[in-house]
Amino acid sequence: MAATPTIRLQDIADRVGGKVHGDPQGRVHGLATLQSAGPGQLSFFANGRYLPQLRSTNAAAVLVRTEHLDSVPQAAIEVDDPYLAYARVSQLFDWRQPSRPGVHPSAVVADTVQLDPTAEVSALAVIGAGSQIGAGAFVGPHAVIGADCQVGENSRVEAGVVLYDNVSLGARCIVHSGAVLGADGFGFAPDSGNWVKICQLGGVRVGNDVEIGAGTTIDRGALDDTCIGDGVKLDNQVQIAHNVQIGAGTAIAGCTAVAGSTKIGERCTIAGLSGITGHLTIAAGTHITAMSLVSKSISQPGAYSSGTGLQPHGSWKRNVVRFKQLDELSRRVAKLEQTIELNSIEGHKE
Amino acid sequence: MAATPTIRLQDIADRVGGKVHGDPQGRVHGLATLQSAGPGQLSFFANGRYLPQLRSTNAAAVLVRTEHLDSVPQAAIEVDDPYLAYARVSQLFDWRQPSRPGVHPSAVVADTVQLDPTAEVSALAVIGAGSQIGAGAFVGPHAVIGADCQVGENSRVEAGVVLYDNVSLGARCIVHSGAVLGADGFGFAPDSGNWVKICQLGGVRVGNDVEIGAGTTIDRGALDDTCIGDGVKLDNQVQIAHNVQIGAGTAIAGCTAVAGSTKIGERCTIAGLSGITGHLTIAAGTHITAMSLVSKSISQPGAYSSGTGLQPHGSWKRNVVRFKQLDELSRRVAKLEQTIELNSIEGHKE
Amino acid sequence: MAATPTIRLQDIADRVGGKVHGDPQGRVHGLATLQSAGPGQLSFFANGRYLPQLRSTNAAAVLVRTEHLDSVPQAAIEVDDPYLAYARVSQLFDWRQPSRPGVHPSAVVADTVQLDPTAEVSALAVIGAGSQIGAGAFVGPHAVIGADCQVGENSRVEAGVVLYDNVSLGARCIVHSGAVLGADGFGFAPDSGNWVKICQLGGVRVGNDVEIGAGTTIDRGALDDTCIGDGVKLDNQVQIAHNVQIGAGTAIAGCTAVAGSTKIGERCTIAGLSGITGHLTIAAGTHITAMSLVSKSISQPGAYSSGTGLQPHGSWKRNVVRFKQLDELSRRVAKLEQTIELNSIEGHKE
Repeated sequence: MAATPTIRLQDIADRVGGKVHGDPQGRVHGLATLQSAGPGQLSFFANGRYLPQLRSTNAAAVLVRTEHLDSVPQAAIEVDDPYLAYARVSQLFDWRQPSRPGVHPSAVVADTVQLDPTAEVSALAVIGAGSQIGAGAFVGPHAVIGADCQVGENSRVEAGVVLYDNVSLGARCIVHSGAVLGADGFGFAPDSGNWVKICQLGGVRVGNDVEIGAGTTIDRGALDDTCIGDGVKLDNQVQIAHNVQIGAGTAIAGCTAVAGSTKIGERCTIAGLSGITGHLTIAAGTHITAMSLVSKSISQPGAYSSGTGLQPHGSWKRNVVRFKQLDELSRRVAKLEQTIELNSIEGHKE
Repeated sequence: MAATPTIRLQDIADRVGGKVHGDPQGRVHGLATLQSAGPGQLSFFANGRYLPQLRSTNAAAVLVRTEHLDSVPQAAIEVDDPYLAYARVSQLFDWRQPSRPGVHPSAVVADTVQLDPTAEVSALAVIGAGSQIGAGAFVGPHAVIGADCQVGENSRVEAGVVLYDNVSLGARCIVHSGAVLGADGFGFAPDSGNWVKICQLGGVRVGNDVEIGAGTTIDRGALDDTCIGDGVKLDNQVQIAHNVQIGAGTAIAGCTAVAGSTKIGERCTIAGLSGITGHLTIAAGTHITAMSLVSKSISQPGAYSSGTGLQPHGSWKRNVVRFKQLDELSRRVAKLEQTIELNSIEGHKE
Repeated sequence: MAATPTIRLQDIADRVGGKVHGDPQGRVHGLATLQSAGPGQLSFFANGRYLPQLRSTNAAAVLVRTEHLDSVPQAAIEVDDPYLAYARVSQLFDWRQPSRPGVHPSAVVADTVQLDPTAEVSALAVIGAGSQIGAGAFVGPHAVIGADCQVGENSRVEAGVVLYDNVSLGARCIVHSGAVLGADGFGFAPDSGNWVKICQLGGVRVGNDVEIGAGTTIDRGALDDTCIGDGVKLDNQVQIAHNVQIGAGTAIAGCTAVAGSTKIGERCTIAGLSGITGHLTIAAGTHITAMSLVSKSISQPGAYSSGTGLQPHGSWKRNVVRFKQLDELSRRVAKLEQTIELNSIEGHKE
């Protein structure tokens, strides 16, 4: 394992725009939760629920807001947003090896590939004709990059990723193992009981600072390209169909599927296992809760949900029977209301 | 990138059984939507909603039905079914490289493989003992084909696909990257708190003209084989459990899961994120809408659905509370009806 | 294909603690269902529904309980639990090749890997620095094992699996193709409209006797590790987020997703396409039915469900409209009840 770096508290404070309370020359060699941190580790306090853990932590130092400085048992680094500061500091302790420029002898790289000399191509990677690999980019072992692809500077294509031909990634992207970009969109025309394949002639365009999770699939467009905006974050096993457009900064959690030609606005957050059907438009800033099905366009940002909530199986089963009679039940209530009103009128008449 | 072909309008008309209105010697070099097509591109008009786009398109020619010939600004190709014609024409502009027969020197092919000389085996592919690769077949880079497999003529096994031992693919199939065929079905017998593995002794049989999406998994059978019929189309991230049988021509959209031993009839269409539980029989011609759970057999073809529809989170939350009381609510309504009827009878008695 | 073994009935009875009724020297060469078994094959009878098939089976011998011995047409092996016995016997007929110790010349294995001489490393596998591969372990073709990983004795890492750095597998595990262990958890801190990556500094710890399905993803922890207990069985395309803990013996069916930091107890069974949101605790012995969403902790074991059940699309659509008015409907019923009661009181007053 790579030797763990130790970092001075002052250097951490400088990175996050914070102020050290305690010895700025103190050093930490890692990050941990309040509860599990030992001496020599840094922690953070971002959730009021954990105040008891803050008070009893063994962490060498804690990232906190001003109002909690008094509760920190050892050193503190005062910051405006401890969670954000934690994110920034986590990058100092990343386990990834620094890039080793060059091409592993077992890799198969076409002659016409434009490969920046600072890029790293790992063992048994394959890169097709006409592709461009930018400065500082990383192509993992067994990654397959098709023809005419672009991998922007400092982007990482992890082990076993597949990019079909004509897929472009911007700068500073991470594509995790098992992800497949540019497979054929699911397009067929019916012909008297058979399906005739519609060749998918578009590509995939991914912006800058995009992260794509393990096992996620993004299909190529039918005619135009499938487009993923800058700063989009896709979790594992997300499915993005052909010609989908995702606006900048949108985050989509695991196992969500977006059907063809749907346009998702900027800065949406879509929880896991959700589905969005095809040819819809979703307003910027929309939030979808877990396992919801979106089957109409959303023009007003806000939070949206579907589903029934969880119940013990026995009572759920009885309620499901009633759900299937709900329209009828509703009509019965309307009839009751009429009857009551009628009785009431007749009562008054008497 | 491969040089883009240019094709005469007459050749296109011949392919789709259509008639050119305009210069049959005119040439197009690509396909595009009505809106984005430029001169030199072909488009199609299949959806009445886009009539304004048809009238203003810059496309060199448009595939249209007879009744819309007058609305086409440049050349037209008159056809019965423009969408089907578009599908057929799309295949003329496919981006895939023509097959290059032979075995890449980095591939690892067992001695006993029966490899048609017109097949292409790409860089770093692995093919196990006793497997057969048919005429014109393509085995992509990093594809792993186990022992005793068959890949039918003109089938494509894309980059990184894994076929376990004893998996057969018919002719003209496409299996996209990340797909795994023949992994063990999920079978265990309980033994006082532990699970004892049931070895999965069957294989996987895939018919002709089947397309299997990226990241889709089809498990091998427990004793008999898992069987996918001719012309079946599976989108990305579909999960097919052991011993499932899928009838010819059925199409299943992304992220749908089918549990063990279920039989799906012919020509079904199953939308994305749906689930079908185990040991069911689904009638031919059944349609399941998105994110529906099928937990009983379906004997009558037709469209079936489950779920609640999407709502703003606040009102959804209130309705979910009521759903959990639905059986009780239903009983209260029944009681009201009895009371009213009683009152009414008593009223009449008075 | 490997020569199929033939096995004496007495040897099978010894393995499963059963008693042969018939010729103990009789031999079988395979396992099959009652219906499809031919002479020379063994079957089992575990489900009363199949009694007619038992009576007419051609199987050379059948695993049965005492009370069904009379219904077996040929030889029988009397056991307490035929399904469990079938599981044990299935392992005698496994199609997998016996391990061939050694490293394929095309594999890329770092110098510092501790590789047991009885382990098998297949073609084009990659193993990173400092990893340990135990006795009898199998690393499939194209598998990628990062740095500082452990693969326990007799574990199988199938073709194309990816383990990122710092992932450990216990003994006798099976990880199926397309699975990815140790990709980054989905963690970002918001920073005025942008997402700042939280580097995921933990690893993944998998216990003994764990099976992980094709395409399943298990993310590394943010600070601590993601932990999968002994004997856990995960089906295909399951998604396990960072810092999830799964108790021993729990089984999770296909396409289920578990969000970050959730703790699932021991011996739970979670059906397919289910979702469990983050930071929950699920009691040991809980059962979740298919496509259910768990969004609160469960403290009482039992069966839980969500969803509406399937209906023909037309009536479903009408009921969905009513679901969206359910809170209002409920209020209307309460008002009716008040009115009725009031009328009744007034009626009595009159």
